[in-house]
Amino acid sequence: MQITGKTRVYMIFGDPVHQVRAPVVFNYLFQHHGVDAVLVPLQVPLQDSAKFVQTMMHSSNAAGLWLTIPHKTPIIPLLERTDRMAALSGAVNAVRRGPDGRLEGALFDGLGFVRALAHHGLEVRGKCALIVGAGGAGLAIATALAEHGVDMLHVADLDASKAQAAVQVVEDAFSTHASAVTLPTATQYDIVVNATPIGLKPSDPLPFEIDGFDTSTVVIDILMPKSPTRLLQACERRGIRAFDGHEMLVQQVPDYLRYFGHDQIADAVASDLGVVRKLISSN
Amino acid sequence: MQITGKTRVYMIFGDPVHQVRAPVVFNYLFQHHGVDAVLVPLQVPLQDSAKFVQTMMHSSNAAGLWLTIPHKTPIIPLLERTDRMAALSGAVNAVRRGPDGRLEGALFDGLGFVRALAHHGLEVRGKCALIVGAGGAGLAIATALAEHGVDMLHVADLDASKAQAAVQVVEDAFSTHASAVTLPTATQYDIVVNATPIGLKPSDPLPFEIDGFDTSTVVIDILMPKSPTRLLQACERRGIRAFDGHEMLVQQVPDYLRYFGHDQIADAVASDLGVVRKLISSN
Repeated sequence: MQITGKTRVYMIFGDPVHQVRAPVVFNYLFQHHGVDAVLVPLQVPLQDSAKFVQTMMHSSNAAGLWLTIPHKTPIIPLLERTDRMAALSGAVNAVRRGPDGRLEGALFDGLGFVRALAHHGLEVRGKCALIVGAGGAGLAIATALAEHGVDMLHVADLDASKAQAAVQVVEDAFSTHASAVTLPTATQYDIVVNATPIGLKPSDPLPFEIDGFDTSTVVIDILMPKSPTRLLQACERRGIRAFDGHEMLVQQVPDYLRYFGHDQIADAVASDLGVVRKLISSN
Repeated sequence: MQITGKTRVYMIFGDPVHQVRAPVVFNYLFQHHGVDAVLVPLQVPLQDSAKFVQTMMHSSNAAGLWLTIPHKTPIIPLLERTDRMAALSGAVNAVRRGPDGRLEGALFDGLGFVRALAHHGLEVRGKCALIVGAGGAGLAIATALAEHGVDMLHVADLDASKAQAAVQVVEDAFSTHASAVTLPTATQYDIVVNATPIGLKPSDPLPFEIDGFDTSTVVIDILMPKSPTRLLQACERRGIRAFDGHEMLVQQVPDYLRYFGHDQIADAVASDLGVVRKLISSN
């Protein structure tokens, strides 16, 4: 990669930002496909979200932004337009300039989750799902599952009002049967999602009990641990299929490329995600 | 170069920015010397100088800024401290956080010029110099020549008040004999500097007549043309030694490295500037 005065600059904003995998992945893809662009990480404090987004996007060679925690939601008021997933979830992964120069954003988290399920051989349509954790990630997954035809959706959160709010979003926009629930429930689910941060620390307890699940249930822990979380380990011991969050991230890579106008690369990458999978895991 | 979430980010602000050579030079040096840092260009409009500097330097992994035209002067009010050259010229090339977190800046242009003269075998002390053009570059060179003991300094500018202002700065701070002059003068100079932008366009006239110079005069045209400017060509025809601005830039590279705390690399680079010379010319 040779950076010159003509190179277009993308940035990823996060706090913290040291853990982000996007620069390794996208800089490899830019270089491999001959795109004169670079993605650099920037540690941006939460209270400076709006200032950084507005300032950076005022530079004509700043080509676009990746947003990660805690910036996905606070910048929504700056955007002239969002895609449907972003509008429903109130969060974005990416910001670009629209044709009129105004800022617009899109959310790929939920679509990445649904495509990760497909990668694992799981069809969403008609299924019964439980999402534990109704924060940004939980809401993104809830709306994407509903968009893709999940039949019944249960949402659990220690804060019952957050679970209820997520249910309301889904019910207002989709025909999915959604309810807020408290754990444990007696329902048998096809898909169970940990969308809480519980499990990030090795000392964390299980985010929920898995004793009631039968082996037809698939568990997805969206965390991206270096070594398997306690939940993933417990599922393995019980013979329950379980996956971590890596594939959800892998599946979003073509979305970012397409959103920023690199359609041909997006198609090429989507047709063979092997190298992306390797870059994300090795990082 | 592998950019990760932990990579420190430097930026160079300019308008335009496509012509800057710094990213190629410094990214090569960072990579070659194993520094996990990257320098990216950002096109920043003049009116947004302060906003960009303040915003970017609020990010803890934004390690520092390179400033080029038109940002060298307007950001001075943001700085808590500057070095002496910057204070005298009212301009900076680089901004960093001081130990107390406040912003500080430094100017290397003039020192680079003096070191370029030394590289060409020219000692400044006791000499007689003419600077044509009393803008930012002319003032930086004037103060650096005075700092390094030039005996007599003439400054010419179409705007006589600018020439007089530069003379005033030099007289207030140094014991140099400085005067504003109008061209042509009958004085014989050791060193004559074109610090105007005249010559950037192939259709430009000579910035000043060279008929009166004898062959002991050395002319430096600080422009960095792809092909020799009309001034350089005219000097060559007359048998007058003349140099362009490349070496002035080359000589500043160790200054930036040292200013941003890469002392060991600065020393290594300063002891052999060959690779820098090659990178700057090839760009």
